[in-house]
Amino acid sequence: MKISGLLTSAGINIGLCVLFLSLYSVLRKQPANVRVYFGRRIAEEHNRLREAFILERFVPSTGWIVKALQCTEEELLAAAGLDAVVFNRILVFSIRIFSLAALLCVFGILPLNYFGQDIHHVRIPSESLDIFTIGNVQEYKHIARLRLHHHTRATPNLSHFTVLVRGIPKATKESCSNAVDDFFTIYHASSYLFHQVVYKVGKVQKIMTGAKKAYKKFKHFTDTTVDHSCRAISYRCCLCGASSNSFQLLRTGLEQNQGKSDLQDSSLKLDDQECAAVFVYFRTRYAALVASEILQTSNPMKWVTDPAPEPDDVYWSNLWLPYNQLWIRRIATLLGSIIFMLLFLIPVTFIQGLSQLEQLQQRLPFLKGILEKRYMSQLVTGYLPSVILQIFLYTVAPLMILFSTLEGPISHSERKRSACCKVLYFTVWNVFFANVLSGTVISQLSVLSSPKDIPVQLAKAIPGQATFFITYVLTSGWASLSSEVMQLFGLIYNFVRKYILRMEEDTEFVPSFPYHTEVPKVMLFGLLGFTCSVLAPLILPFLLVYFFLGYVVYRNQLLNVYRTRYDTGGLYWPIAHNTVIFSLVLTQIICLGVFGLKESPVAAGFTIPLIILTLLFNQYCRNRLLPLFKTSPAQDLIDMDREDERSGRMDEIHHRLHSAYCQFHDSEDIPLEKIQIVGRGGDQGSSSGKSNGKETSEESGVELSHPTLNGLPISRLRHAVKSITFLVRLQKRGLSG
Amino acid sequence: MKISGLLTSAGINIGLCVLFLSLYSVLRKQPANVRVYFGRRIAEEHNRLREAFILERFVPSTGWIVKALQCTEEELLAAAGLDAVVFNRILVFSIRIFSLAALLCVFGILPLNYFGQDIHHVRIPSESLDIFTIGNVQEYKHIARLRLHHHTRATPNLSHFTVLVRGIPKATKESCSNAVDDFFTIYHASSYLFHQVVYKVGKVQKIMTGAKKAYKKFKHFTDTTVDHSCRAISYRCCLCGASSNSFQLLRTGLEQNQGKSDLQDSSLKLDDQECAAVFVYFRTRYAALVASEILQTSNPMKWVTDPAPEPDDVYWSNLWLPYNQLWIRRIATLLGSIIFMLLFLIPVTFIQGLSQLEQLQQRLPFLKGILEKRYMSQLVTGYLPSVILQIFLYTVAPLMILFSTLEGPISHSERKRSACCKVLYFTVWNVFFANVLSGTVISQLSVLSSPKDIPVQLAKAIPGQATFFITYVLTSGWASLSSEVMQLFGLIYNFVRKYILRMEEDTEFVPSFPYHTEVPKVMLFGLLGFTCSVLAPLILPFLLVYFFLGYVVYRNQLLNVYRTRYDTGGLYWPIAHNTVIFSLVLTQIICLGVFGLKESPVAAGFTIPLIILTLLFNQYCRNRLLPLFKTSPAQDLIDMDREDERSGRMDEIHHRLHSAYCQFHDSEDIPLEKIQIVGRGGDQGSSSGKSNGKETSEESGVELSHPTLNGLPISRLRHAVKSITFLVRLQKRGLSG
Repeated sequence: MKISGLLTSAGINIGLCVLFLSLYSVLRKQPANVRVYFGRRIAEEHNRLREAFILERFVPSTGWIVKALQCTEEELLAAAGLDAVVFNRILVFSIRIFSLAALLCVFGILPLNYFGQDIHHVRIPSESLDIFTIGNVQEYKHIARLRLHHHTRATPNLSHFTVLVRGIPKATKESCSNAVDDFFTIYHASSYLFHQVVYKVGKVQKIMTGAKKAYKKFKHFTDTTVDHSCRAISYRCCLCGASSNSFQLLRTGLEQNQGKSDLQDSSLKLDDQECAAVFVYFRTRYAALVASEILQTSNPMKWVTDPAPEPDDVYWSNLWLPYNQLWIRRIATLLGSIIFMLLFLIPVTFIQGLSQLEQLQQRLPFLKGILEKRYMSQLVTGYLPSVILQIFLYTVAPLMILFSTLEGPISHSERKRSACCKVLYFTVWNVFFANVLSGTVISQLSVLSSPKDIPVQLAKAIPGQATFFITYVLTSGWASLSSEVMQLFGLIYNFVRKYILRMEEDTEFVPSFPYHTEVPKVMLFGLLGFTCSVLAPLILPFLLVYFFLGYVVYRNQLLNVYRTRYDTGGLYWPIAHNTVIFSLVLTQIICLGVFGLKESPVAAGFTIPLIILTLLFNQYCRNRLLPLFKTSPAQDLIDMDREDERSGRMDEIHHRLHSAYCQFHDSEDIPLEKIQIVGRGGDQGSSSGKSNGKETSEESGVELSHPTLNGLPISRLRHAVKSITFLVRLQKRGLSG
Repeated sequence: MKISGLLTSAGINIGLCVLFLSLYSVLRKQPANVRVYFGRRIAEEHNRLREAFILERFVPSTGWIVKALQCTEEELLAAAGLDAVVFNRILVFSIRIFSLAALLCVFGILPLNYFGQDIHHVRIPSESLDIFTIGNVQEYKHIARLRLHHHTRATPNLSHFTVLVRGIPKATKESCSNAVDDFFTIYHASSYLFHQVVYKVGKVQKIMTGAKKAYKKFKHFTDTTVDHSCRAISYRCCLCGASSNSFQLLRTGLEQNQGKSDLQDSSLKLDDQECAAVFVYFRTRYAALVASEILQTSNPMKWVTDPAPEPDDVYWSNLWLPYNQLWIRRIATLLGSIIFMLLFLIPVTFIQGLSQLEQLQQRLPFLKGILEKRYMSQLVTGYLPSVILQIFLYTVAPLMILFSTLEGPISHSERKRSACCKVLYFTVWNVFFANVLSGTVISQLSVLSSPKDIPVQLAKAIPGQATFFITYVLTSGWASLSSEVMQLFGLIYNFVRKYILRMEEDTEFVPSFPYHTEVPKVMLFGLLGFTCSVLAPLILPFLLVYFFLGYVVYRNQLLNVYRTRYDTGGLYWPIAHNTVIFSLVLTQIICLGVFGLKESPVAAGFTIPLIILTLLFNQYCRNRLLPLFKTSPAQDLIDMDREDERSGRMDEIHHRLHSAYCQFHDSEDIPLEKIQIVGRGGDQGSSSGKSNGKETSEESGVELSHPTLNGLPISRLRHAVKSITFLVRLQKRGLSG
């Protein structure tokens, strides 16, 4: 690829960027698109834009950039959670590093390279390393501090009181619920409060789906014949947040009723034997921490305790998986991901072929005519490869999310974080290494002959691929940023839904930020920046523009578009840190290769201590800061417990625990939410409402009074059971109107 | 090397074995050697052999073999600890596997190989794998069960109540002891009992050494002028097992005394600020477990809690190391070991040269005359290489122990276990791989060209080295076993000490079993057995003899010679398990290579699922059983706590905790023990004597009554301090008689 190819690519991408950004600044002011561009704001802050026709709306403006830049870290934290702050910090950190690197390399190394002198100074990487090192410890400490604050924030986090127990041994006689009660009253007597059984989704889901179908048919029926007051038939689920006692009583209630109503339907009987997971609630945070960290019995596969994820973060359908299976699932998905990574080399090699015009002409002779046109060859070599790679890469994220789901994580955030790691490994291997190596080694079908030659091989290979990487920054970086800000998919979806299907606005659907694709993307660009900085410093200005643009765009998106339902609590930072260390060591190995090629043993000698120091620094961070990302310090939790006890808030928190985790609560389908059947019973008497953001669905349910019998609203449960039965019967009889 | 060389070697070694074993059976009956051959028995069981001159004493006999075989596992456990049982199990397991493998391979594969047919059945490795797998899970479960029993054994283990705290932050005003008190009374109020500061060895050791020197001079003085009643001047150390309160009072006592006696000597003032480690005692085992497993504060390098080792197992001089240093020490020793491993290749290559006679004659032409004699060449090629390797290998264990010490383990057993791992890696790399590869690949200075070729390379290389490995089994296995049973070094030491130096018998010195050299040795033979079983099955009978002989010899030694002062609690088993899995996978990879060479793709195809199954099996064991070797299950500890509380034994245990850990107690020098200065004060009033086996030294101290002031025997402390001062002054004035 020539410099003209590069310029073509740059031209197209800059044009696209300018176009998209201008379009965005206009489209965001249109009231019709408000749900696309301000989803988070509408869902969480309930403010609406004024609908007035003014000319201003059709003039591109830069106000949004100013707004995105003005937002402080505290505001970002409040609006989009800790993960957003971490992501923001990754961008800030990249900007800092590469500003300096660009300055040094463009004015230091580039002229040297250009004028063909063979002198390389070890000074430059070492200095940038120093700055990086100091900066990074600060960043790491800052994130760790934020994470601690996140734990100790004002509103009590109910998940701190909760432990997820899996691998409950099957008792022959007593029910699972009794077994849990027995175990924890014996071994955690002083701190155990109560527990909540997680049911197999299949079992209850079957009832719910049946009820949903029946409801749909019923609704269709009522829509045509009866008026809308019929909605009053919907109740809320009796399964949510009930304590262990209430479940037993429910069963007794069922048995009492067996004679009267036809509750013989086996699908209704929730078999306690089949429970695979239980949420156990403790009196204090510290007690829950202790229970979650300690090996409970002499069989490490039984009574497995883990810290519970936050209520909105629970991935319910995975909770039911037998704990014994999980390690096999993990190995299987690992193998699956590796095979996928290797298979993906095929399109990558094809792309490499594209950027080498001569090879392409040889292989596909019928293209010769087209390719001989000057403009076409520039387009093919300069732009097409990275577009094709981009299209293939779009399949990666969904597949990795699928792999991560199969792995069996217990929370949405863990699933996303696991997918993020997979996508990152994938990107580094298939975009970076496969491209670097296929240009030189793999394409010649000769393998690495010796580990000693790797630095030299890399040093030879990278300059050859530098122009490809620059176009990659342009397409995958700039252009995808501007399409991100445009929300092309959301815009079209909204348009089709509103004006073609004429459906109501989908108020519930506000997407979460796709950390699993964006973090690896930024990290890959960081890797490209580090490794190319010495050999092809021309990439740095392009990268710097990308990081600046990304800083503005992502802040804007986090503040306006995406909604934070769950949060890993900054767990993306260790991933970013490790990737930066990897990039740095790789860069230093490449430097070693360069100095080897230039036959400068002194400079090469200076590089080895640099590598050792980098690794030592990494080890220090692992020892000093990483444990904070894995567990919570006891001191902080004990202090919080005491503070709550002193202020008398503890009782209120214990009450709220009863309704903290609700299994059949946030199904994706709206009709299901409308027939939620409520039984927030247990021994508290007052259900204080859900603490998450779904107020809308709650309003549609009919609130009943709470007559409690033995601390349990038995009438309500009976009522709820009857209503399910009614709906199921409706479905069975095929009431199709 | 020809078959004649092999026979020479076998002849020499069998001769040595028979000679040594016969000598042993005679020597063990001589009363003069009773301390060499029955060290453990005398030290622990206090029984002596009758001294009567009968002819029977000079006739070789086999009674000891019968005795060694008759001993049950329970007796072994009682006499030599869990590690001995684990070691015994490793041998039993090896015998089982290799009996079967020998049967199959010698009668199955050997004739096939000999008659030159190319048919290999995948049946054999797969069957032996199956038997291995089932057997090994049983073994692993058995060891895990023994470990649990070991924890819950009848005599309460005081270390279960104790947590070692390191990384205590330096407070500006208050003393370290106060800081510990404050922290644990705030955050572990319900379970914290008291603590004990560990002092820098340098500080106190200086005083002790000074006192010791003074005592020596003093003793010399008294030996010539005064009678032996002067011994009454010796007191016991006031630093052992004192509670936190007693230390403060000691200091106050010192300040009160400052005017009267000249205690200005700065070396006497134990600066609390310098304490780096503290033993913290808890009310229950469970509380100690919780405290040791949980991250205490938001700085993971401060208030680091670890389960305390057993009192006799504490490696006091390492406790004082600053916790911040440890990770650097670990990395440094890792690098050191790797460098040593690589440097060791030089003698190994030299040895390989020896076994290839032609190369040797080329390199050292002056040896040509000698080497042309037939007998000499057989000796050089058949026997010399493994003897030289053996001599070099003798330097490895002490060096690895040194590395492990530098690493900073807190217990003797951990130090030995760490050394065991290092020696194992070293042996596998330098004896197995270096020998296999230097014969083919390294000597031709061509490196591994591709990972795909490794199985084939190994399959080619191993038959070439099989005869060397057989001679290695003969020298390093058979001969070293018989010299082990002879205790050549101990015998000579005892003889010199008794008859030449005319010193008293050293009653204290009874060695511990050298697990760090013996476990790797047995594992290496296992590896040789697995890898050679398909290609050179002739090695198996030799190995089988080794394992049988080892079974008898090691049981005899464990029962009679070595004393178990400390125990890892079966932690050698996971090491053995991992090594066996590694050997098995390596064998299967070699099979893959063999089938590749023989061009049998079906058989090779059958081997790959075998490898996967082996790895899955390993993963299962890691999940199911390994956690039990890392931490204790809460259930068992809680049950033990309750049992002790019910039976009222808890108070007694709490009393005993005061004297559990004594820092200046088991110094290697005997004179030091005689001037131990006692202050087992604190708030218990009655010091119930030490719980370990050192009764002799205790008798020499003068017991004082216990007049306690504020729960502290202040008169005694004053007395002790005065006596130290006296001794130090004695030394300073140079009282040389």
